Amino acid sequence: MPERPPLVLQPPSRETAQKIADTLRFLAADQVQKANSGHPGMPMGSAEIATVLMTKHLRIDPKDDKWLGRDRFVLSAGHAGTLLYGMLHLQGFLTIEDLQGFRQLGTRTPGHPEAGETPGVEASTGPLGAGFAMAVGMAAAERMAAELYNTPKFDIVDHHTYVLTGDGCQEEGVVYEAASLAGTLGLGRLIVIYDRNKIQIEGSTDLSFTENVAKRYEAMHWHVQEIDGHDMDAIDAALILAKEEKTRPSIIIARTTIAKGAPKKAGSASAHGEPLGADEVAAAKAAARWPAESFFVPKEVADYFDIRRGEWMAMRQEWNEMFAAYDKKHHATARELLRVLSGELPKQWKHSLPEFPAGKAVATRAAGGTVMNGLGEAVPELVGGAADLAPSTKTEIKSGANPEFIGKGMFLGRNIHFGVREHAMGWFTNGMALHGGFIPFSATFMVFHDYMRPAVRLASMMKLRNIFVYTHDSIMVGEDGPTHEPVEQLAALRTIPGLNVWRPADANETAFAWQAMLERKDGPSAICLSRQNLPVLDRTKFAAARETLKGMYILDTDTEKSPEILIIASGSDVHLAVGVAGELRKQGKAVRVVSAPCLEVFRTQAEGYRKKVLPKRMKKRLVIESGIAQGWEGIVGDSGIFVGVTDFGLSGKAEAVAEKLGMTVPKIMERVNGEGW
Amino acid sequence: MPERPPLVLQPPSRETAQKIADTLRFLAADQVQKANSGHPGMPMGSAEIATVLMTKHLRIDPKDDKWLGRDRFVLSAGHAGTLLYGMLHLQGFLTIEDLQGFRQLGTRTPGHPEAGETPGVEASTGPLGAGFAMAVGMAAAERMAAELYNTPKFDIVDHHTYVLTGDGCQEEGVVYEAASLAGTLGLGRLIVIYDRNKIQIEGSTDLSFTENVAKRYEAMHWHVQEIDGHDMDAIDAALILAKEEKTRPSIIIARTTIAKGAPKKAGSASAHGEPLGADEVAAAKAAARWPAESFFVPKEVADYFDIRRGEWMAMRQEWNEMFAAYDKKHHATARELLRVLSGELPKQWKHSLPEFPAGKAVATRAAGGTVMNGLGEAVPELVGGAADLAPSTKTEIKSGANPEFIGKGMFLGRNIHFGVREHAMGWFTNGMALHGGFIPFSATFMVFHDYMRPAVRLASMMKLRNIFVYTHDSIMVGEDGPTHEPVEQLAALRTIPGLNVWRPADANETAFAWQAMLERKDGPSAICLSRQNLPVLDRTKFAAARETLKGMYILDTDTEKSPEILIIASGSDVHLAVGVAGELRKQGKAVRVVSAPCLEVFRTQAEGYRKKVLPKRMKKRLVIESGIAQGWEGIVGDSGIFVGVTDFGLSGKAEAVAEKLGMTVPKIMERVNGEGW
Repeated sequence: MPERPPLVLQPPSRETAQKIADTLRFLAADQVQKANSGHPGMPMGSAEIATVLMTKHLRIDPKDDKWLGRDRFVLSAGHAGTLLYGMLHLQGFLTIEDLQGFRQLGTRTPGHPEAGETPGVEASTGPLGAGFAMAVGMAAAERMAAELYNTPKFDIVDHHTYVLTGDGCQEEGVVYEAASLAGTLGLGRLIVIYDRNKIQIEGSTDLSFTENVAKRYEAMHWHVQEIDGHDMDAIDAALILAKEEKTRPSIIIARTTIAKGAPKKAGSASAHGEPLGADEVAAAKAAARWPAESFFVPKEVADYFDIRRGEWMAMRQEWNEMFAAYDKKHHATARELLRVLSGELPKQWKHSLPEFPAGKAVATRAAGGTVMNGLGEAVPELVGGAADLAPSTKTEIKSGANPEFIGKGMFLGRNIHFGVREHAMGWFTNGMALHGGFIPFSATFMVFHDYMRPAVRLASMMKLRNIFVYTHDSIMVGEDGPTHEPVEQLAALRTIPGLNVWRPADANETAFAWQAMLERKDGPSAICLSRQNLPVLDRTKFAAARETLKGMYILDTDTEKSPEILIIASGSDVHLAVGVAGELRKQGKAVRVVSAPCLEVFRTQAEGYRKKVLPKRMKKRLVIESGIAQGWEGIVGDSGIFVGVTDFGLSGKAEAVAEKLGMTVPKIMERVNGEGW
Repeated sequence: MPERPPLVLQPPSRETAQKIADTLRFLAADQVQKANSGHPGMPMGSAEIATVLMTKHLRIDPKDDKWLGRDRFVLSAGHAGTLLYGMLHLQGFLTIEDLQGFRQLGTRTPGHPEAGETPGVEASTGPLGAGFAMAVGMAAAERMAAELYNTPKFDIVDHHTYVLTGDGCQEEGVVYEAASLAGTLGLGRLIVIYDRNKIQIEGSTDLSFTENVAKRYEAMHWHVQEIDGHDMDAIDAALILAKEEKTRPSIIIARTTIAKGAPKKAGSASAHGEPLGADEVAAAKAAARWPAESFFVPKEVADYFDIRRGEWMAMRQEWNEMFAAYDKKHHATARELLRVLSGELPKQWKHSLPEFPAGKAVATRAAGGTVMNGLGEAVPELVGGAADLAPSTKTEIKSGANPEFIGKGMFLGRNIHFGVREHAMGWFTNGMALHGGFIPFSATFMVFHDYMRPAVRLASMMKLRNIFVYTHDSIMVGEDGPTHEPVEQLAALRTIPGLNVWRPADANETAFAWQAMLERKDGPSAICLSRQNLPVLDRTKFAAARETLKGMYILDTDTEKSPEILIIASGSDVHLAVGVAGELRKQGKAVRVVSAPCLEVFRTQAEGYRKKVLPKRMKKRLVIESGIAQGWEGIVGDSGIFVGVTDFGLSGKAEAVAEKLGMTVPKIMERVNGEGW
């Protein structure tokens, strides 16, 4: 074993530190200039911040960007990606060639940071506010994991979450939501550095954003500091204080100059999102007595990071040794931690999935609650909450270990009160999934998916195992009226590439949908559940409920004759389909009923299976879904009909609304009879 | 003419005032009880607030809920609809029978207030935060209209915007966004009353919402007061001070008890969203020495409002007289005001629409900017802004009268700096449309439609003339990468019932799309515009651009033979369609190219026209759109193919991304040739 480098970090000299900052500054300018596209201003303005963070605070393993013990650094201002890429170069994750490929197809340096595409990138950012809100979830996950896995002698989980954010993020509503929640939870290990350059695309922030940001964060119970963001001593001192603050999240408001160092464009809006131009880059370098060559890294800087990487690896080694001792002393806990980090579900977890007896009427939201409470015991990493709707969404975990709500100073729990903050909830759970160790869920009424859509999109882009529970899934919400009745949300959910959208027909389909969602490791799932009671289908008469896992399946078919009419439905509408099938049989028609709990999963089935369920020759197709037709036309085909809801819903008793909108068996039969089938 | 009632409002006696409050309280409890569904808690808790507002402050015309001069009262906590319905009963807009029909199909009292369904309801609310953010837009519209139409002697536009909001709204990010903007703009006539009962569905707000709300609003430069929300003198005093404050928006934090007056359930979470139960209602009435009968209105209260309505009508009469004098002295201005309020466009406005010469390459976002600047002069009521992207979306109005940005104390302008607040922007413009006098627009990158989707949904539900501009409409965004490239947003926009979604193919289609959007009075429109340059189609070779107005039209067809292949595309993809058509013709195929700028408008065309454009017999259909297939399958049909983008985009030069994802003429030809057509 080679001699171990010292574990106390050697800070760079003042001169080296400035050289590191200038290296980051000009690497950013050069990346943007070479790509002839990008945002030079903020990276150049926050180079000193990044320097202090990397040289004095950040704990990472430069060989393993998945190390549990690493500090998380989230660049919420994703447009400053060149800064992050420069940092990752100095850390050892990216080469200069990577940086030279900025914004080019197929490189590891896309226009905005993408988790999974680039080593060391913790979260995909660019849509403003997203990184900040995800970091809140990461910081909560850290504390929750610490409570679960640390022991008095072993602080296995013991890291900080750092965020670099800009003015744009601070204007986004989701950041206020997330900040308010972070303040309520007292996330003391969350440290936000706000690069306050006061410039945005339309000009000075004075034009649209005049609030007192320090006071706002104080109002939310944050620890607030204001500094000169180019003064590296001040940055260091502020970070030290922020780390000393244990019970409040910290924000360091760092006043900076956008495009600092650019002689003409520093401080200007044009520096935000356009290349500086070769002349301005050259002038900036000259002013800093910097070599003109592109992508220059001084030997002194490279040497410093050689040492720094050694220190980082030693830190990791120390942690590994601690973990080995921990594993020895607390073997079961250590193995459990490794299991949840691996994403493997516990053995035998499926035994916890309930089977619901036929005949009873159960709302699928209630069935979902029952399923989740079985999982409460069996899958301890399942944690989450609702946007102030848990009693309605039935998503509180009341079983298993620690069936509590987390709160300030109390992170041993399974449930989170998100408050009426759908958007932050989406990002928060993304952050938990990114952190690792948990399978998060969140819940709200389906119509309020609209409030959190950007987070669901990115969950899918990042392929996160995140579960979105949406209840009150149709016009059968009834009395709350059209503002609360989803009509287009199912279709809108299905537009998101990579998202599996489940809409189970009964309690048992709900259980299997949950099974599929938990088993999916490579992307998020949404589950759409009914407010109203639905009969539990008698599986002695209908196909087995585990067929649900195929996404679409033949629930019931007249096998004696070749069925001529094919009825396809999802969720509560399957019961209408069964009713319509009965009526058609009375007319002597041979019918097949297909339950369609998840179109996306069905599309991944082998062609043979898909053709069996939806044979090409069966052209007389009736699709029933209490929503818009969009997404179904391809299945309906040229000769079929779709029965759904084309306009916003109505306020009234659910049955009256259904009658008015034609979503009853007799009304559907009128439509079908009109076809002359 | 009957004798005029006194114009100075006669306040009710203390006893009458309490009776009014109790009337509202028990009317709410009775409505919920009769419907056996709804939210009794907040209405009962804010009955005193509503009483003081109605008896001492609110200016309305009880016969004309569209009167320009009325104060706006927005119930942002839409779940407290029974309070609003009680108020509207006392004002004279609703009958007791209306209240008895609460939450029943076909009544004027839906589960949450719906603008257009109920007289006196200013905005549809229920989704939390929405009303607050719309009220900010209303208050801005009031000041902007005042600047335009008032004269030193005539304060024709001179009203307040009152908002009643609860804890839930205050947790929603969009409220922070809107409040921050209102503080920046210094909307002194915006008065928010925050019913702070500290109870939400999951329990006490202490569980998730601990911030110091007063301090938060102070940080945003609001005038903040805190009072006992059941003390009617305190409420009155606070409202007087709020009205005296001219340069800051006001918030009155009114501490209340949820379900005040209910002996067992007051102060409890169960009172939020469930009926109290007959026994509890009876006990509450008994405790207040109130008659047990349902829907009771004491004679004293009815009599008071008879007088109050007389006062209100006298106010209106006084305003009418002022308007008559104003009309005499400033006839042109008065007529212009009446015109903009009517929604009629100016005569000859269409002359301002530019015609773009063929041959040049123009991004449709740039063409949109040119069109808007022609409209700047011709349609002075067109006002709006971007979410800090105006230089990119090209949506700044630089022509016509007052081509300025509005700001604090400076409301004579056409443009608004919304900041990076897409969601608030959507509601703000809804509020402007609801206020009247303006045709608002808003702009951001298309991918960020996701951030503002709830506002677009409600714009459509309320049938508002609101124009949403979305630029950077495809993977051709290129270098910014997948977080910034819309793939599913077009489909998602088209899911919203009643929204017209335009995606013009070139500059001239853009002009006609704008014409259609402006001419539409009964609903919102979105326009999706390219970042990249697109050739201006030569209309001597292709169909006339005004065909755009039909939503879909035959751009080019081989008339000599009956065309066998039908190519349909929208926006930038029309140019791919034209290229593919050329290749197919080289192969000797007869081809038709259809441009599809707006599917929704096409669907409203007569069947004959639709069949002419898309004849049933033409089964070999190729649809090209740089997005997901959803929404197109019905047109593609059983025998057609769709060429689009099935997964998230990529970061790279636009042309490289298009090549990689198959969105080029040669790649599409490979697909088509594979069909064996």
